[in-house]
Amino acid sequence: METKQQLSNRLKSIEGHVRGIVRMVDEDAYCVDIIKQALAVQRALEKFNSIILERHLQGCVTTAIRSDDPGERERVITELLQVFETSSKI
Amino acid sequence: METKQQLSNRLKSIEGHVRGIVRMVDEDAYCVDIIKQALAVQRALEKFNSIILERHLQGCVTTAIRSDDPGERERVITELLQVFETSSKI
Amino acid sequence: METKQQLSNRLKSIEGHVRGIVRMVDEDAYCVDIIKQALAVQRALEKFNSIILERHLQGCVTTAIRSDDPGERERVITELLQVFETSSKI
Amino acid sequence: METKQQLSNRLKSIEGHVRGIVRMVDEDAYCVDIIKQALAVQRALEKFNSIILERHLQGCVTTAIRSDDPGERERVITELLQVFETSSKI
Repeated sequence: METKQQLSNRLKSIEGHVRGIVRMVDEDAYCVDIIKQALAVQRALEKFNSIILERHLQGCVTTAIRSDDPGERERVITELLQVFETSSKI
Repeated sequence: METKQQLSNRLKSIEGHVRGIVRMVDEDAYCVDIIKQALAVQRALEKFNSIILERHLQGCVTTAIRSDDPGERERVITELLQVFETSSKI
Repeated sequence: METKQQLSNRLKSIEGHVRGIVRMVDEDAYCVDIIKQALAVQRALEKFNSIILERHLQGCVTTAIRSDDPGERERVITELLQVFETSSKI
Repeated sequence: METKQQLSNRLKSIEGHVRGIVRMVDEDAYCVDIIKQALAVQRALEKFNSIILERHLQGCVTTAIRSDDPGERERVITELLQVFETSSKI
């Protein structure tokens, strides 16, 4: 699993990628090249989410499901379904 | 949660929807109308998957995470991540 | 480009695939295996849509954009954007 | 249609949004809240792409399809299909 530092660096590289697209727009780059870069950023965010989700499943979800509180278990499952549905719509 | 019968009916309706698109192709329907129907089928499959996933989280995943076998827990988490990544790519 | 017959066969195979998932549900197959098959059907529908879209661009869109009617051109472009936005949300 | 300045501002707001997620990671925010923000950025990029695509269809694609060079027309259609397929996979 990635450390907090690695996750932070991953996001900073995404931020730099977006800044690169601002430049492309300012310099009138070809539309299709701009779209391709924006799609690459989306893929990088997808990868980032999948890493965060793994941490979540290994940590919070495991703890909640093992706890004696049925409300906790319901809560994490509902959240997981929301994440799944929202990300399916992207 | 839906019963097995309801899930089965939901899929049969998707099957009928696909059969309708076969007819559209055979009768030379307008391309964009065909694409819209195929997208509607994809949305129905997404909804179906989300229902199955809820059953899975409430059932198998909960059992596996509560079991004393760490291998079982790893297995269900790895599977969930695969499902998440594959469905993000669609 | 695929013939109408090939497109029709492609859809019939998708229909058969959905029927296979109905059987899996009826026989209580493992949730994750069911989801994987439903995702495979979604991918096949995506491929189908991409073939139809190619026909559309080569045919209707080219004709409309070349026509002298600016309303026609606006219509096909609006439709393309709708298809793009809807399929991005799946 | 948005001006270049508006497109540039739209991207700068996305860049700021990503910077906000860096902070969330640094401050150990709840995994699900981080994922929700990353999904919101993806949606904003999708909207951005759809605006660029509209400009592309109104501009370059229309010019290419109306030109007498069949190679130009083939090129823009192939590019559109690639954009469609890549964005369907996100």
